[in-house]
Amino acid sequence: MHQIHSQFEIRSRGKGLYDFTEEVRRWLAGAGIRAGLLTLFVRHTSASLVIQENADPDVQRDLEAFLARLVPEQDPLYSHILEGPDDMPAHVRAALTQTQLSIPVHDGRMVLGTWQGIYLFEHRRAGHLRTVAAHLIGE
Amino acid sequence: MHQIHSQFEIRSRGKGLYDFTEEVRRWLAGAGIRAGLLTLFVRHTSASLVIQENADPDVQRDLEAFLARLVPEQDPLYSHILEGPDDMPAHVRAALTQTQLSIPVHDGRMVLGTWQGIYLFEHRRAGHLRTVAAHLIGE
Amino acid sequence: MHQIHSQFEIRSRGKGLYDFTEEVRRWLAGAGIRAGLLTLFVRHTSASLVIQENADPDVQRDLEAFLARLVPEQDPLYSHILEGPDDMPAHVRAALTQTQLSIPVHDGRMVLGTWQGIYLFEHRRAGHLRTVAAHLIGE
Repeated sequence: MHQIHSQFEIRSRGKGLYDFTEEVRRWLAGAGIRAGLLTLFVRHTSASLVIQENADPDVQRDLEAFLARLVPEQDPLYSHILEGPDDMPAHVRAALTQTQLSIPVHDGRMVLGTWQGIYLFEHRRAGHLRTVAAHLIGE
Repeated sequence: MHQIHSQFEIRSRGKGLYDFTEEVRRWLAGAGIRAGLLTLFVRHTSASLVIQENADPDVQRDLEAFLARLVPEQDPLYSHILEGPDDMPAHVRAALTQTQLSIPVHDGRMVLGTWQGIYLFEHRRAGHLRTVAAHLIGE
Repeated sequence: MHQIHSQFEIRSRGKGLYDFTEEVRRWLAGAGIRAGLLTLFVRHTSASLVIQENADPDVQRDLEAFLARLVPEQDPLYSHILEGPDDMPAHVRAALTQTQLSIPVHDGRMVLGTWQGIYLFEHRRAGHLRTVAAHLIGE
């Protein structure tokens, strides 16, 4: 049994979903582990991870639109406003989605369904360089 | 240290929660691993996983009712409508719950609390055969 | 490769976020595992786990305020009311956040970002003693 640590850097261009499935797949192909468990962990509190449909880009746009409406900016509810009107909504959106995903690896591949892609979900208006830590254990 | 891969198939009958704790428990009992980590991963983007109270079935009905109201069908917000009025809401509901659950295994049992059950959460109107990949590592 | 099981007990004083990052850090420092995967699992269905910003306490208050408004008490939607007006909302809030978190451990430390803290999220009005199971695998 072995384990490998790595990290992915994803450059976002504002709110929305950024597919990095291929980056993970390429890294996994060279990792020398055929069966095991892959864990991805986003090292931020205003971005998150989500597995979503990768077939129709409208799904990603609609998911962003839903969260923008559910967690509006300029909400008088918030006290935490010094970092901008999009900062506290970003924390809420991150809390409602995932900080971490663990994906079994079997026969050298993640057990993703046909239409599942791995996305970084950016919750701030501005682009950011986001870091996702990766851990793989198996053999 | 060993690992085992498996999968569970759960037949849903439309929106709602489907308890498959017993299937997981039976499989675990025969897996020969007394201590470790069990990971469940749903291979779909319009169904998800959730751990919820298993005592009162009203909890499961109320959770379904809450999500149906929070993420309504026929919402003019959505562009992704070709797969039916319940498809995009299904993706949103999946994003707001969990794609994956990891549960420590100790003394041959999952460390679930007394009232915790493991549920597949179906988000489409129609019944589906859903696949949950399972990975167990331990000894 | 080794594994260790433990648990954390967190005493809440009603709805809100309770930081237990330091408890986890201290335990990890004595666990003798420098690289691996740490999994935390809350053994309740009316409390959950969340990773959030630890710099400004307003973030935690605002997150609580958002969920209190999103999932109101006294909601005529609910059938499950025998355990009090805050019980079903607690289950919904738990479903919308996380039951479990897995965090890679590298060079003897969790790979948390600078501003990331680990919180128990209490969803009931009354204080409770909450149990979080911990599992660490690595070497």
